[in-house]
Amino acid sequence: METNIGKKIWAIAEGYIPAWSNGPAPEFTSHEAACILNAGDKEAHIQLTIYFADRQPAGPYTLTVGAKRTLHLRFNNLEHPERIPLGLSYSSVFISDVPVVIQHTRLDSRQEANALLSTIAYSE
Amino acid sequence: METNIGKKIWAIAEGYIPAWSNGPAPEFTSHEAACILNAGDKEAHIQLTIYFADRQPAGPYTLTVGAKRTLHLRFNNLEHPERIPLGLSYSSVFISDVPVVIQHTRLDSRQEANALLSTIAYSE
Amino acid sequence: METNIGKKIWAIAEGYIPAWSNGPAPEFTSHEAACILNAGDKEAHIQLTIYFADRQPAGPYTLTVGAKRTLHLRFNNLEHPERIPLGLSYSSVFISDVPVVIQHTRLDSRQEANALLSTIAYSE
Amino acid sequence: METNIGKKIWAIAEGYIPAWSNGPAPEFTSHEAACILNAGDKEAHIQLTIYFADRQPAGPYTLTVGAKRTLHLRFNNLEHPERIPLGLSYSSVFISDVPVVIQHTRLDSRQEANALLSTIAYSE
Repeated sequence: METNIGKKIWAIAEGYIPAWSNGPAPEFTSHEAACILNAGDKEAHIQLTIYFADRQPAGPYTLTVGAKRTLHLRFNNLEHPERIPLGLSYSSVFISDVPVVIQHTRLDSRQEANALLSTIAYSE
Repeated sequence: METNIGKKIWAIAEGYIPAWSNGPAPEFTSHEAACILNAGDKEAHIQLTIYFADRQPAGPYTLTVGAKRTLHLRFNNLEHPERIPLGLSYSSVFISDVPVVIQHTRLDSRQEANALLSTIAYSE
Repeated sequence: METNIGKKIWAIAEGYIPAWSNGPAPEFTSHEAACILNAGDKEAHIQLTIYFADRQPAGPYTLTVGAKRTLHLRFNNLEHPERIPLGLSYSSVFISDVPVVIQHTRLDSRQEANALLSTIAYSE
Repeated sequence: METNIGKKIWAIAEGYIPAWSNGPAPEFTSHEAACILNAGDKEAHIQLTIYFADRQPAGPYTLTVGAKRTLHLRFNNLEHPERIPLGLSYSSVFISDVPVVIQHTRLDSRQEANALLSTIAYSE
């Protein structure tokens, strides 16, 4: 059972990359992450689409997560087909070809003391 | 499949808009948000009801989220039929005519360093 | 449908009331809360049991949430049958006679800048 | 019903133990915890596996949670078969022989003001 943990469709409705940071990079760089666990024994191929308030979606971005590996993807680092603007609201949908588990986390270091949030993403 | 992600009924049991703020508006204005993703290809029409500790519910508030769009709704900004008082506990229920995904987030900047919380809402 | 939102059994595995506070009470008193939404039209009667690391469970505590009302219960305020010690790890289980929705929140103000966490509870 | 609350398989996709701390130990030691509630009347035996970005998984770690008890496990404290490195991304999977409920929490005290995150883990 352990090799099939998770779901193939995930969504994160919240999305916002704070526009500046305090503290040493990369640990304290304000960022938003999708932590993706592939506990199975087949490589996961994931299509990521980003939704905005007032324009067409961006993507798909293509991600690969090795078998029995985790990927802590920083949305800040996505480059192709386009970068996600800082300080702008977005949402994300992940479609994987094998079951994975996705959790959403933000570190906001715009002020001297960082703030954190995290939640399991929505799956079906 | 991608166009039908989500559920039509969502609830957020926690609700509280901090009564004051530190830092530049609107980024650091204390707020509570419902991030609503409509990944489908039909516009979403949502009825929002607010529940309180000791009075009748407020609403319905009517929201629209475009097809393939996200709405990061700040409860602070709701005006009709009535504003939500600051510093008061509430809960919220969303009824949509098409599937959506909803996540709850608060930024509390009452102190110099802001604090964040977030969770996927309850769906059925 | 709106009047039957939720589940009757909920659990919160995390539990910890920080032992001290900074800032004006009661807003900034370190606390842990179970936010309970009863969106239905019947009063909810809830039995709450608290589990510890190395002693028998405490409770049941009895809670009532009015029809179409929310209760933001601070665990700090529970008194009968016994108070929950500060600074000690616990978990909680809620059994309701009608469907409710429960979310877990902590405000930790032991340091000058408060920290927040929140998550939907586990339901079945 | 109350004695069978939970699931046997849980996953936490996010994992990261901050590498340093501010404030008195152990309360303010930066840590990551899996809060495990065993509300049932049989002892729970759990196998924990840790997944990394670029090496084979670690474990299994074996955990025991008494009947009607909670265990707030700090990942920092795991020693056998190996310690989890600080400042490194990981994920975790828990397989229990009886139903349990698991919630994920981090306290990050690398800066003067601590930050918190928490979420219900993923279950199936």
